[in-house]
Amino acid sequence: MQNFDYYNPTHIIFGKGRIADLDKQVPANARVLITYGGGSVRKNGTLDEVKAALGQRHVLEFSGIEPNPAYETLLPAVELVRREKIDFLLAVGGGSVIDGTKFIAAAACYAGDPWEILTSHGAKVTGALPLGTVLTLPATGSEMNNGAVVTRKELKAKLPFLHPAVYPRFSVLDPTKTFTLPPRQIANGVVDAFVHVMEQYLTYPVNSPVQDRFAESLLQTLVEIGPQALANPQDYDIRANVMWTATLALNGLIACGVPQDWATHMIGHELTALYGMDHGQTLAVVLPAMMDERRQAKEAKLLQYGERVWGIREGSVAARIDAAIAKTREFFEAMGTKTRLADYGVGQDGVDQVIAQLQTHGMTALGETREVTPEVSRRVLERSL
Amino acid sequence: MQNFDYYNPTHIIFGKGRIADLDKQVPANARVLITYGGGSVRKNGTLDEVKAALGQRHVLEFSGIEPNPAYETLLPAVELVRREKIDFLLAVGGGSVIDGTKFIAAAACYAGDPWEILTSHGAKVTGALPLGTVLTLPATGSEMNNGAVVTRKELKAKLPFLHPAVYPRFSVLDPTKTFTLPPRQIANGVVDAFVHVMEQYLTYPVNSPVQDRFAESLLQTLVEIGPQALANPQDYDIRANVMWTATLALNGLIACGVPQDWATHMIGHELTALYGMDHGQTLAVVLPAMMDERRQAKEAKLLQYGERVWGIREGSVAARIDAAIAKTREFFEAMGTKTRLADYGVGQDGVDQVIAQLQTHGMTALGETREVTPEVSRRVLERSL
Repeated sequence: MQNFDYYNPTHIIFGKGRIADLDKQVPANARVLITYGGGSVRKNGTLDEVKAALGQRHVLEFSGIEPNPAYETLLPAVELVRREKIDFLLAVGGGSVIDGTKFIAAAACYAGDPWEILTSHGAKVTGALPLGTVLTLPATGSEMNNGAVVTRKELKAKLPFLHPAVYPRFSVLDPTKTFTLPPRQIANGVVDAFVHVMEQYLTYPVNSPVQDRFAESLLQTLVEIGPQALANPQDYDIRANVMWTATLALNGLIACGVPQDWATHMIGHELTALYGMDHGQTLAVVLPAMMDERRQAKEAKLLQYGERVWGIREGSVAARIDAAIAKTREFFEAMGTKTRLADYGVGQDGVDQVIAQLQTHGMTALGETREVTPEVSRRVLERSL
Repeated sequence: MQNFDYYNPTHIIFGKGRIADLDKQVPANARVLITYGGGSVRKNGTLDEVKAALGQRHVLEFSGIEPNPAYETLLPAVELVRREKIDFLLAVGGGSVIDGTKFIAAAACYAGDPWEILTSHGAKVTGALPLGTVLTLPATGSEMNNGAVVTRKELKAKLPFLHPAVYPRFSVLDPTKTFTLPPRQIANGVVDAFVHVMEQYLTYPVNSPVQDRFAESLLQTLVEIGPQALANPQDYDIRANVMWTATLALNGLIACGVPQDWATHMIGHELTALYGMDHGQTLAVVLPAMMDERRQAKEAKLLQYGERVWGIREGSVAARIDAAIAKTREFFEAMGTKTRLADYGVGQDGVDQVIAQLQTHGMTALGETREVTPEVSRRVLERSL
């Protein structure tokens, strides 16, 4: 096992009816900015429930944070926070709203050009306003981690940043708030959580049996309940399990002491920035091709994954790995998420464009062993056409 | 799944050579009290390493915190803390030293009779001095939770308390510090961690597949590496995995959204208080008998445990449960921990004494369904003679 640090101070408030707890969690004298997306939380009553829980506090709203939150969208919120002396941010939505709110929280405390927060991947963050979240879409894990991804549309650049100051103080996870999500969003969320686990699991063995088994626990559970979540949108327990699984998939726990990959995510980010593909769609396309391309470097873990998650115990090494990749692809397709670039209208010239953008963004030595050069990324993309 | 709160702000600093990190974690102007036990940390060099890392800070020492830390031992430390205006506590040792230090931290801030901290199970705690830990014995999980157990020898009372103020700010987990532990302490630690998991797992199903699989992951890992940890005391990876598994066994994570039992622990505490049995020994005695006595209430989970942890898939319900209990007992015995009261010289009159003490301490409705009355506890003890 490798040395590691684990620190995660986010208070999770989980279950039916827990939005009422906001009254205990948000300081009584806070000047609160509620941030949200396209307005579904307004239509389905969640926003009213949040505001009722906040009672007499001074509350402003900022709406319109889009999927893959845009730098250009968020800067006016930073101005609003400063002008109105906001001292607490409350994100109500999914990972995009939460990520955007983390950026607002850090940018409001940053004296320089806020773009530096992203180009430094968080190294230049000097602090952040306190923030809490009310999660409505299980997927990204942002509700219990210190990361965020923001897109600068004019540059077609989708960049991550990390900083301990942006851990949410609390996150309210009420599974009933997911009942009205469109199937495509549930599918994207399940695929995203699945690939988060894979990026921390499918590397090389370091004698970490608990981390391996925890990762396999999350994968097995997503395989089991993902399709059920589509079929039974009002089933509380299924939605509760999807929600908690997605949170655990990226809260730092399964990363303790093990190498991490993230090449699939970095290539996926470029596909979203260039072609507007959903984040989950990009992962469903890239991961199976990445598994195939890196089958030698990842052989031991691919075999373990095949056996423990899919019960694949027979056949040659190559046949077992083929079967594990095929099962993964079938799972994504069963969730309704297509797994080929062609399904999204992206062809060979798209491959060239993604490689050029990876080079522009310095993504030239990806993966757990830094072996995913632009040439390797090209072969991955060509395998996914 | 049940509603739950999860909050755990302890910073884990894991790996070889991490004691040096104390310099970053303890405030530079702190007045530090290092607390420890019988002196093994002095003999094996760990104390010197800790003091070197603390550099020029004002440091005092308090030694002699025994296994099952005694209220009578700890009160002088509370006086020392007040007299010397200590503002940071650093526990160097295992769960007993850490538990004792949590009590010192809370008692130093408590204006009333400190015994009330224990009789209220922490409800009366008003705050605590900040504390950190350097763990030398993987077992109790105290390094990453907000609980402690303290024994008042004159009353033969071993009582737990819980409060968020006593979460360690940080815990340094260096597996090499366990290389010199006697086999009995490693065995006790593995048994303790195993039973911690069982108390949170072996209840009744609430549709929580991830929590179940995480618990089974910890159990499978302890079964696999427990005997290896005895056979290969200098194997870094094995000790690292024992250490991290024991921490995860009782840091709140696998308790999220599920019922909990703890009857085995409460009966075990009385056995330690009356007869001085090691904590791990009491659990190895009580758990198999508790599984047998409560086989109907716990039937679904007993079968799941047998299948997933021990591969027991054949035979009648009764036969499979018998086999699961037998495997559990064999595992404890393989760790060198005897599983019958007679092995520790306790007989039928001991049963009467334990029942009387459980009644004195109000432990009359234990377990996940409060069905473990003194009559049930008596049958459990009689099954374990």
